[in-house]
Amino acid sequence: MALPAPNLYPDFNIIRLSHIELVVRDLAVSKAFYADTLGLQVTFEDATHIYLRAMEERGHHCVILKKGDEPCVNVCGFKVYDEEDLDRAETFFKAKGLPTEWITRPHQGRTLLTRDNMGMPIEFYHKMDRLDSIHQKYKLYNGVKPLRIDHFNYFSPDVDASIAFWNDMGFRVTEHTSDAETGRNWAAWMHRKGGVHDVAFTNGTGPRLHHLAFWVPTPLNIIDLLDLMATTGYVTNIERGPGRHGISNAFFLYILCPDGHRTEIYCSDYQTVDPDHEPINWDLKDPQRQTLWGAAAPRSWFEHGSTFEGVPTSESDLKAQPIIAP
Amino acid sequence: MALPAPNLYPDFNIIRLSHIELVVRDLAVSKAFYADTLGLQVTFEDATHIYLRAMEERGHHCVILKKGDEPCVNVCGFKVYDEEDLDRAETFFKAKGLPTEWITRPHQGRTLLTRDNMGMPIEFYHKMDRLDSIHQKYKLYNGVKPLRIDHFNYFSPDVDASIAFWNDMGFRVTEHTSDAETGRNWAAWMHRKGGVHDVAFTNGTGPRLHHLAFWVPTPLNIIDLLDLMATTGYVTNIERGPGRHGISNAFFLYILCPDGHRTEIYCSDYQTVDPDHEPINWDLKDPQRQTLWGAAAPRSWFEHGSTFEGVPTSESDLKAQPIIAP
Amino acid sequence: MALPAPNLYPDFNIIRLSHIELVVRDLAVSKAFYADTLGLQVTFEDATHIYLRAMEERGHHCVILKKGDEPCVNVCGFKVYDEEDLDRAETFFKAKGLPTEWITRPHQGRTLLTRDNMGMPIEFYHKMDRLDSIHQKYKLYNGVKPLRIDHFNYFSPDVDASIAFWNDMGFRVTEHTSDAETGRNWAAWMHRKGGVHDVAFTNGTGPRLHHLAFWVPTPLNIIDLLDLMATTGYVTNIERGPGRHGISNAFFLYILCPDGHRTEIYCSDYQTVDPDHEPINWDLKDPQRQTLWGAAAPRSWFEHGSTFEGVPTSESDLKAQPIIAP
Amino acid sequence: MALPAPNLYPDFNIIRLSHIELVVRDLAVSKAFYADTLGLQVTFEDATHIYLRAMEERGHHCVILKKGDEPCVNVCGFKVYDEEDLDRAETFFKAKGLPTEWITRPHQGRTLLTRDNMGMPIEFYHKMDRLDSIHQKYKLYNGVKPLRIDHFNYFSPDVDASIAFWNDMGFRVTEHTSDAETGRNWAAWMHRKGGVHDVAFTNGTGPRLHHLAFWVPTPLNIIDLLDLMATTGYVTNIERGPGRHGISNAFFLYILCPDGHRTEIYCSDYQTVDPDHEPINWDLKDPQRQTLWGAAAPRSWFEHGSTFEGVPTSESDLKAQPIIAP
Repeated sequence: MALPAPNLYPDFNIIRLSHIELVVRDLAVSKAFYADTLGLQVTFEDATHIYLRAMEERGHHCVILKKGDEPCVNVCGFKVYDEEDLDRAETFFKAKGLPTEWITRPHQGRTLLTRDNMGMPIEFYHKMDRLDSIHQKYKLYNGVKPLRIDHFNYFSPDVDASIAFWNDMGFRVTEHTSDAETGRNWAAWMHRKGGVHDVAFTNGTGPRLHHLAFWVPTPLNIIDLLDLMATTGYVTNIERGPGRHGISNAFFLYILCPDGHRTEIYCSDYQTVDPDHEPINWDLKDPQRQTLWGAAAPRSWFEHGSTFEGVPTSESDLKAQPIIAP
Repeated sequence: MALPAPNLYPDFNIIRLSHIELVVRDLAVSKAFYADTLGLQVTFEDATHIYLRAMEERGHHCVILKKGDEPCVNVCGFKVYDEEDLDRAETFFKAKGLPTEWITRPHQGRTLLTRDNMGMPIEFYHKMDRLDSIHQKYKLYNGVKPLRIDHFNYFSPDVDASIAFWNDMGFRVTEHTSDAETGRNWAAWMHRKGGVHDVAFTNGTGPRLHHLAFWVPTPLNIIDLLDLMATTGYVTNIERGPGRHGISNAFFLYILCPDGHRTEIYCSDYQTVDPDHEPINWDLKDPQRQTLWGAAAPRSWFEHGSTFEGVPTSESDLKAQPIIAP
Repeated sequence: MALPAPNLYPDFNIIRLSHIELVVRDLAVSKAFYADTLGLQVTFEDATHIYLRAMEERGHHCVILKKGDEPCVNVCGFKVYDEEDLDRAETFFKAKGLPTEWITRPHQGRTLLTRDNMGMPIEFYHKMDRLDSIHQKYKLYNGVKPLRIDHFNYFSPDVDASIAFWNDMGFRVTEHTSDAETGRNWAAWMHRKGGVHDVAFTNGTGPRLHHLAFWVPTPLNIIDLLDLMATTGYVTNIERGPGRHGISNAFFLYILCPDGHRTEIYCSDYQTVDPDHEPINWDLKDPQRQTLWGAAAPRSWFEHGSTFEGVPTSESDLKAQPIIAP
Repeated sequence: MALPAPNLYPDFNIIRLSHIELVVRDLAVSKAFYADTLGLQVTFEDATHIYLRAMEERGHHCVILKKGDEPCVNVCGFKVYDEEDLDRAETFFKAKGLPTEWITRPHQGRTLLTRDNMGMPIEFYHKMDRLDSIHQKYKLYNGVKPLRIDHFNYFSPDVDASIAFWNDMGFRVTEHTSDAETGRNWAAWMHRKGGVHDVAFTNGTGPRLHHLAFWVPTPLNIIDLLDLMATTGYVTNIERGPGRHGISNAFFLYILCPDGHRTEIYCSDYQTVDPDHEPINWDLKDPQRQTLWGAAAPRSWFEHGSTFEGVPTSESDLKAQPIIAP
């Protein structure tokens, strides 16, 4: 299936992905992972929540850890350009018959909670508490030295439908994997903020979160994290990598937190701000799209994901893929 | 002087800086520098011009070398979002009483040539020839492995006036240097594409180009370039660095081409896409704004620049600065 | 089996491993691999041989490619401290009933060809043609920027016997893998020149060469090589890595040349010059000794090796190992 | 003056430089610098001393900080191969009419204290307390991640005399700077352990310590240290660099501790174990020997050094050098 024409003038203006709320079972265990090992900075914590940001972020949070009984994802958040974009967003989702709700999220202004076409909970806000800059407080850098949240990757049972829906919101495809025989897309990477992606969709039982990702300065930071995890009891939390994706050209590492949520550590993709930036199409049969260097990903990487709280999933009608693009 | 309020809805939509035409005296000498040493890729060349692009760029050119008798800069180019933005730009500049002209530039579509408030020639276009992607043709990587053009830095005799003019075009200040006593700005960094800057203005005799800049993956690429230049006859073309700017947090190197045009090699700034991203103000007396690590820049770096062809320059009325921010 | 006491005063003084002669089927194909891709410098070539050196070496060759019908290894070379050490070496090997022969090797002085305890051909020399230093001719750096040959790794059917023999020659064990139940060693790393090893022995059918290794400056050079190989037709020549060995602490990559000879690219081991440097013992059951980060090596890596010309091999009496240390 | 012939069979066998005792005025201030900022590990501390080691060292100490009123250096230590080398060393120094004394140094075995030809206190030992390996305890890595002590650099008023004396002890010159007109050497780098140097001598008022040096894995660790020092109150302790020396080819940084002792952070020199390794001679007039990339060193770097406790200094009879090699 061909890609839809990019929607250069969407109904409302999303700037970028912003944050995610993950349900975890033990906040102390999760803090040891996300703050002390990965290197995110705690901006607020109490008995039920920990808020975290990365080193160059001035918004209050990019990850919220919420204590719960069963690990899952509550919501993924996106920042809009103007406050009126929130109202335009409400109109957009209502017109599609999707549920909308104005909610209160601490440290954020007016926040619209809604769902995408496959039922995945997403929220939009315009204002978040702004914190002092810490990107030059080098004494605070720790772990992998995460600079900023980079993207979300989701399993979708119908990637073409996901592309169509998110394209309508103004996300532009930068790379995609398609089946040369059927023309159907098996995966797509879509951006708002000018990199390879803010969101990606991969064929599989969904909606589920495949991973969230952080941007780091260089591959050496990823090597440092591997050495640290391997010698502090986290060796089995290393799932895949390091390696280079064909798609996105990124140097990557995938790790699993103690609750099984997957994080990608990511660097060196490229700038995509041109509206006439041409998508790169990868053939489903090209193994280098996943790992440019040829190493196969482990089975868990193709199958495991985090469900969204209370959201049922559907299987894809595409036959079980031998290889899923990153 | 306080900064003007960001213009979130400018009259026309500039995506990013795009290219520059440099006049050089000997194309073979310049090619040895820009292509064989710096690592830019030649996309077209004839007896009078060489067109170059960086490794992840798909547009036809980011640097045009034009043979001439006297080194100077002809024009700096910017890409707009939509073709109608060109007409809106014409209206914008005409309303300010600035000259506009529709010109033909090979490999570009309709192109508007005009001037900024200090007489600096700038051009806008919407379409440029798109070339095949080469960012994964690793055999072609060479020199410093330049990934993309990042910004232009100009000497301005009136930085506050430059800020006001470019702010009106939608450029947003990310960092600036001001004199705590007088409140006047001595330098400003302004972006469209979501990094620290597309353009910067530094107090001094102008308009002149202080430097153009390329983004590279890691500081090690800059070290490689230093080793290469130092052992292939270019040691005196190394002007300043390597170092870390306080402003922008970038790891930098400044080099001079055989015609004296300055190029910065640059990595590791940060994302600024949020419209409420707060500018960082540096005090004129803080030496770490220039070099976080404390080393002084050489005198040439404060004084030398490239004039624009046929454009007279004015001195700044601010007293000769002891230190100019990067 | 416990390790033998280090022999601090061996009968003759070996400085370091030096070179290897590999038989390859097509010199042009091999040159494309070893010189144009890996980045070794050609120091001499004719219709039957290519001599290569790495960037900081001043000796004439560290690899000799010899045209032949069947890929194999002819000999591994070692440099001795003093010319008289050659005569002492002859005495040493004769006393053990091993064959010795004075041979002529172009670009080397007097050269003693002999065998180790398992029949592996090795040669010793004192003088080799010395070439101009090129370590600061940065224009010549290419591929992975190999700095120097680092070590040889061999399959041995009796690792304890190999340790005993090479210990007698003054090689000192820095790390070893042993079976806690039987006490037998499954692998050992032994040095002369002050790093983790000049030679290593791994349990398996032997004598066979498991790999030769080159030292490179940083992990980023290894990443560069992976990108280059993956996009120039060598993706299937990438066998294992990148990763960090538990043993030796080295960052590694294993690649196979078109004739199947394995090369390790290696950086960041440690200094071992102290004669009282204590060997590190790894348990056969500890998977992190192979890959600190936990990823398994592919089956080929455990089984494939290069035979020595005309030298029959024996199977190990140790049961097929599930995992062989790196 | 030509170099003396290398002494391949010295009277006693020194393995490597080992440690230094620095007198500092405030142990807490020094600990903040050497342990918390530079990243050395404390192995013992009491009211008057702090003992430190680097990450891959198993010997008990490479730096001893001793509380005192006036910053100075007490002694530099070297490790010998065999205990009998200590007695041979005593004979060697006595034969030269130099004072020798058997002293007790905590955590070391039998220790010989003596002087070199210019009166500099040096000590030799064979056994030092061995500590557990920490090179894979990555959680402990901090600051610049110093791996091991690399060398000492001294001011000598008569470099040719220093070369002659240390050559007699078996140190081999790898690089030197000489005056083409007079033939006199202005600086020399001499090794035992197989790198560019264990000790170096630079023309100037001496004996004084110019600097001690630590080996780090990559230039990025040096950049990390610069960022850390620049933002934790140590910006004025950064004296010179980062840069590449022509001599030694090392990537370097020079920093000063709160008591003014200079430390070099150093990586990427080369292997020199071959006894026929040819010294590289640099002309005194070649500025690239100091900084390959051309930047000048600050005046303090040429003039400032640490005196040895109670040791008078002499001026060099060579005229004040405009440039001193690194």
